[in-house]
Amino acid sequence: MTTPHEYAKSHAQDFRTQLHELLRIPSVSTLPQRTDDVRRTAEWLAADMRRVGIQNVEVMPTGGHPVVYGDWLGAGDSAPTVLIYGHYDVQPAEKSDGWIDDPFDPVERDGKIYARGASDDKGQAFIHVKAVESLLQTEGKLPVNVKFVIEGEEEIGSPNLVSFIVENRDKLKANVCVISDSGMLSPDQPSIVYALRGLTAMEIIVQGPNIDLHSGAYGGAVHNPVQALAEIVAKLHNEDGSIAVPGFYDDVLALSTEERAELKKTNWSDEEWQHITGVTRPWGEANFNIRERIGARPTLELNGIAGGFYGDGIKTVLPARALAKVTCRLVANQKPQRIFELVRDYVAQIAPPTVRVEVRALRGMSDPAFVDIHQPAMQAAISAYEKGWGKAPIFMREGGSIPVVADFQRELGTPVILMGYGLNDDGAHGPNEHFVIDMFHKGIDTAIYFLYEVGNS
Amino acid sequence: MTTPHEYAKSHAQDFRTQLHELLRIPSVSTLPQRTDDVRRTAEWLAADMRRVGIQNVEVMPTGGHPVVYGDWLGAGDSAPTVLIYGHYDVQPAEKSDGWIDDPFDPVERDGKIYARGASDDKGQAFIHVKAVESLLQTEGKLPVNVKFVIEGEEEIGSPNLVSFIVENRDKLKANVCVISDSGMLSPDQPSIVYALRGLTAMEIIVQGPNIDLHSGAYGGAVHNPVQALAEIVAKLHNEDGSIAVPGFYDDVLALSTEERAELKKTNWSDEEWQHITGVTRPWGEANFNIRERIGARPTLELNGIAGGFYGDGIKTVLPARALAKVTCRLVANQKPQRIFELVRDYVAQIAPPTVRVEVRALRGMSDPAFVDIHQPAMQAAISAYEKGWGKAPIFMREGGSIPVVADFQRELGTPVILMGYGLNDDGAHGPNEHFVIDMFHKGIDTAIYFLYEVGNS
Repeated sequence: MTTPHEYAKSHAQDFRTQLHELLRIPSVSTLPQRTDDVRRTAEWLAADMRRVGIQNVEVMPTGGHPVVYGDWLGAGDSAPTVLIYGHYDVQPAEKSDGWIDDPFDPVERDGKIYARGASDDKGQAFIHVKAVESLLQTEGKLPVNVKFVIEGEEEIGSPNLVSFIVENRDKLKANVCVISDSGMLSPDQPSIVYALRGLTAMEIIVQGPNIDLHSGAYGGAVHNPVQALAEIVAKLHNEDGSIAVPGFYDDVLALSTEERAELKKTNWSDEEWQHITGVTRPWGEANFNIRERIGARPTLELNGIAGGFYGDGIKTVLPARALAKVTCRLVANQKPQRIFELVRDYVAQIAPPTVRVEVRALRGMSDPAFVDIHQPAMQAAISAYEKGWGKAPIFMREGGSIPVVADFQRELGTPVILMGYGLNDDGAHGPNEHFVIDMFHKGIDTAIYFLYEVGNS
Repeated sequence: MTTPHEYAKSHAQDFRTQLHELLRIPSVSTLPQRTDDVRRTAEWLAADMRRVGIQNVEVMPTGGHPVVYGDWLGAGDSAPTVLIYGHYDVQPAEKSDGWIDDPFDPVERDGKIYARGASDDKGQAFIHVKAVESLLQTEGKLPVNVKFVIEGEEEIGSPNLVSFIVENRDKLKANVCVISDSGMLSPDQPSIVYALRGLTAMEIIVQGPNIDLHSGAYGGAVHNPVQALAEIVAKLHNEDGSIAVPGFYDDVLALSTEERAELKKTNWSDEEWQHITGVTRPWGEANFNIRERIGARPTLELNGIAGGFYGDGIKTVLPARALAKVTCRLVANQKPQRIFELVRDYVAQIAPPTVRVEVRALRGMSDPAFVDIHQPAMQAAISAYEKGWGKAPIFMREGGSIPVVADFQRELGTPVILMGYGLNDDGAHGPNEHFVIDMFHKGIDTAIYFLYEVGNS
C-alpha cells in the first residue's frame, strides 16, 4: 500500500503543475480591476480542495474578498482539530518592476518556481492542501480533524478577517492553528517563530505660529516648532537606549534564562549587523543582545519627521508646524491602546508651554503575539520538522508584526504555530519572487508528519 | 525765487506721472524673458537722471543686469559726498496672484499708488532722483556731491554687486551712503534702522543605515537617524533659550544702557506678540526683551526638517537618513564663516557614534550690519526727518538681513544710513503692492533736507 509520503513523492510534478495554475491567476487584492481574478482564484482553490476530498468547501463572502473554507471532520469529536490559515491573494507585480519573467506566468529555473505569490503565500498555503490530499488519497482519512481558512485580503491588512472569525467562532473552533506564511532561518535550519511584535501608531504635531514666519523678523522670540518637536522627540528615549515614557515597560513579559540561551543561537555579531544594515555600530538597550532587542523588547520608532522647508538651498522661514510619525513595536503583554495613551500623556507632560502639541492615534494598531513553546502542539511541530527536515527547529522571536496570529489567539483562544517555509531572499513583495522547489516538497512532507504528530499527542 | 521744496510741490503730479512710467516697465530680474525689460528700465532711469541734470550717467554692465550710475560732483573736493543706493528691479507679479489691477499698470486709489515696485524699490529710489532734480532745477547746484548706484539685481540677491563695488572703489568713494529700501514704524513716526542681522546657512545630515529598513525587522538595534537628528537639534539650545554652541556669543556687541532704553520704546508686549504671531506665548532669551531678541541677539533657527515617511497614515520604516536646515541670524560683530565652523564643530562633538553626521555650509552667508548712531551724518538724518516729517526718528534694530549694507561698509568703508519710506503693509513681494503717495512726497522733502544737512555738517 502507498504511504502518504510516497504519494506526495510520486505526485510531485502534478502538485507543481497545479501550483503553476494557481499562480497564473493574478489575485492582486489591492487592485479593484483584479476583483474578478481574486474571486476566480478562490474558486480554483475551492475546486481543488473539493477534488482532493476536503469537505464542506465554500467560498464564503466577507465585506471584501471571500474566504475559502473547507474541512474534514472525520476523525471524530475526541480527536484534535487543526485550523490551517493561509492567503491566496498577492501583492501587485508588473514585469516592468524588474521581473525577468512575466510575474503571472510561472517559470521553473535553478530549482525555484518564479512567480508572484510562489512563496507569499500561494505556495505555502498549497503545501497543506497537498499534505491533506496525500493522506486522504492513500489512507482515506486524516489522523486529526482539519479546517481550512484561506483568505483573500492579507496583503491589504486583512480588514475583514477579525469580523469573519467572530461571526464564525463555532465553525472555526480548533485545538491548534497552523500558519505557513513566514520564513525559515536557512534551507537546512527549520525554525518556529513563537513571538511577533504588535504595533501602535501615532503622530505628534507641534504648532507654533499661525503661519510660516520670516526668520529674520520673528526669529529669537518665537519657539521654533521644529526645535520644539526635536526637544520632545529627544526626550522619548533615555541615554541608555531605553524608552523614557513612564510605564512603557510595565507589561513586558520578561525573558527567561532558557529563552535567552535559545535566542543567543540566532544573534548577530556587531560586525554582521554593521554589514547587514550599513550602520557604523549597533544601537539599543545595552542589557539585551541584538536578537533580543528586535524580538523581545518593545521599540518607539520615528518613522518620519517633517516641518518647514527641506528642498535644495535655503528658505529663511520660521515654520508654523512640524510633525513626527511614530510607531511602537510591542511585545507580550503590552496593549496598543494603553501604550498610545502612555506616550500621549508623557508628550503632553513634557511639551513646552510655548507651542501647541497634539498626539493623534493612527490606524494600524495590532496586538503582539506570543505562543507558549511548551504546549503539546509545539512538540508535534518539533517532531514533524525532525522527520521532514532531519533537524529540530530553532525557536525564534520576530520583530515584525503578523496581526492575524494575535487575532486567532484572542478571538478563538487557539494557539498558533508558525511553520514557515519561505526564505529571506524569496523576494516576497519584490520582483522575481520565487519559492525553492525543495522547500515546497519538504514542506508537504513536514505538514503530513505534523498532522500525524498532532493526532498522536 | 522758487525753493527746491516749492519746486517739488508744484511738480508733484509730474513726479508721479514719471514714476508711473517707471513702474510700467516689468523689470522682473529673476525671469530670463524679462531681461530686455530690465535693461529698458535702466535706460529709462538713466535718461531721466540725465534730463534733470545729473552728470556722467551710464548704464554700467555687470555679470548680470546693469547698474545705473550717475553723479554730480560740483560741490567740490572739500564738500562731503553722498552715495545713494537703490534698485530698479522688482519681484515677479501676475494679476492671477491676487492683484486687483494689472501689477504693471499703476493705479492711484485712496492716496496710494498700486503697482509692483511702487514701494520696493522704484518709488523709494526715485525719491532721491526727484530730490536732486528739485535742487538742481532751482538752485543750479547741490549742497554736496552726489553719486547714484541703482542696481538691477537686488531681488535675486545682488550676485554681482560686491564685485561691482570692488571694481569701482574709487569711483564710488563717499562720506556716507543712504539707502531707501526699508520701512518706517508708522506714517507719523520716522525711524532709522541702524542694525541688521547677518546670516549663515547650513544643513545637518544624519545617515543611519544604507537604505530605509523595516522597522519591525531592525527596530530597536539601529539608531534611528530621525531620533539621532532630534537629539542633536535638541542640544543646540539651552533650557533658557540661549544657544548652546560654545563660543557662539563671543563676538556679540553688547547693548549699552541708552541703546536698551531706546529699543524699549518699540518693544511689543507679550499680548501684542501673541496676537501678531499666533503663538501661545513669546519665547527666547529671558534677559532680553522681544525687540532685543530680534534685533540685537543672534539666533539659530531650524528652517526645516525632513526624514522618512511623513504622508498620511503610517509607513513602518526605519529611515536611512534625516536632514535639518539651519540658518543663524548674526549680529555685529559675528562672522558668518566663523559661526558656521563653531556650529559644525559642536555638532561633530555631540554627534552619537551610532550614526554618520555631516554639517554642510549653504550659500547665503552675509555679514551683520551696524551703523554708529553718533556719527555726524546720522545727525543730518535726524534733522532732515525733523524738518521733513516734523518729528525726530526713532532708532531701530531690525531682525532681517540687507546684505548690501554690510557690503558697502566693508568694501568702501562708508557708513550707511537707512532712510526707509515704506510701510509694513505696503505688500512688498506680495499682491497689490503700493506706495502711500504722501510718503513719496514727504520722502522727497526729507531727502532734500538731508542733502542740505549733510552739506552743513
